[in-house]
Amino acid sequence: MRNRFDAQLAQLNVELIKMGSLCELVISNSMNGLLEDNDELLKIVEETDPEIDEKEREIETMCFKLMLQQQPVARDLRTISAALKMITDMERIGDQASDIAEIAKYIEGEDSKHHTHLKAMAESAADMVTGAIRSFVERDLDLAYEVMRSDDVVDRHFDEMREDLISMIRSGEDSPELCLDLLMIAKYCERIGDHAVNIAEWVEFAITGVHISEELRNENAKQKGEER
Amino acid sequence: MRNRFDAQLAQLNVELIKMGSLCELVISNSMNGLLEDNDELLKIVEETDPEIDEKEREIETMCFKLMLQQQPVARDLRTISAALKMITDMERIGDQASDIAEIAKYIEGEDSKHHTHLKAMAESAADMVTGAIRSFVERDLDLAYEVMRSDDVVDRHFDEMREDLISMIRSGEDSPELCLDLLMIAKYCERIGDHAVNIAEWVEFAITGVHISEELRNENAKQKGEER
Repeated sequence: MRNRFDAQLAQLNVELIKMGSLCELVISNSMNGLLEDNDELLKIVEETDPEIDEKEREIETMCFKLMLQQQPVARDLRTISAALKMITDMERIGDQASDIAEIAKYIEGEDSKHHTHLKAMAESAADMVTGAIRSFVERDLDLAYEVMRSDDVVDRHFDEMREDLISMIRSGEDSPELCLDLLMIAKYCERIGDHAVNIAEWVEFAITGVHISEELRNENAKQKGEER
Repeated sequence: MRNRFDAQLAQLNVELIKMGSLCELVISNSMNGLLEDNDELLKIVEETDPEIDEKEREIETMCFKLMLQQQPVARDLRTISAALKMITDMERIGDQASDIAEIAKYIEGEDSKHHTHLKAMAESAADMVTGAIRSFVERDLDLAYEVMRSDDVVDRHFDEMREDLISMIRSGEDSPELCLDLLMIAKYCERIGDHAVNIAEWVEFAITGVHISEELRNENAKQKGEER
């Protein structure tokens, strides 16, 4: 009974890794499609998003079957519940990448001055997603914490992009539509980073039994600082 | 045993309604605080968001206890799983409202020309959240579908706001920071609507056993149209 259950948990990990890989694919293709003006990459994103949605449904079904089959012990239940929560974040990541690709299809006038920030955001975000999934599969708490810390990099790039866009608007050189579209794209990248952090928080929950959100982490850090 | 379980499910509903009410509170206070330039309302939002996070943790714990206590039948498991998913969306709604309030504190130069869209978006979004929770508690599938349809209203206001902001930028009358901040606020409202739809989709899952995302709904509608 336990062997069968363990085999199914192992299969759950396999499917989560597959779903994570699809997320990395759409993140990089949507950004490269935008920056290189490559419609084929954008088409791949459009075709892959439904696959990500399908994976979410598959893994949901696996999780519910696992929960119903036998009385799972607390640790298994945490693992399965964490998986259920993580796939929602991954499905949203797929949606954000689709939204980026959708804007990318129609964007006009984009030039290379924003590539640094956007490329960096997309690469960080993709690495964070990979790291988060790996931390779940390998039950690596330190890696989960590393993912949570990486979000600062993405947020910083977003803030800098916003400042660049404010200057762009002031200079009047580029169309207002372009400025707003680029802000949206930067926002979607930032959201992908947030979702990767959420996944890492669920890994922490699966391993430790405690679900600590970013606000609580910041609050705890602040209190520790005040105690000194 | 069943009586006790039913009592606990009833308590789950009570807590979900409370969490939903906190969400409505922060949505309306963040928007009214912005539009009326009322810092006290914004302060209420700041104080309420941690309560929403706390409610999420409480309800999570209730759900895990319910799942572990006894072998729940499939219908109960769907209900509990749906609750687990819904509270994530509600916690995000709390975050979006906090983000709106955060911007509202520092925004300068806002005048009444955007009030129509922003007020309409916030009201629709708050109604959608209430409707979604009620549809769960009352197991009202039609109400869940009504919430899903309401999202078109919010999306339309967002598109119109974006067009207004493009004109604003062109006219050069307002600061670029204001334009970008207002786009972000409109985006947060749109996201709140999306989260309310997600909650309604989980209600559909709890009642019917099928989880249908918006993309799949649109795909199904398209195919039905083509069959005619």
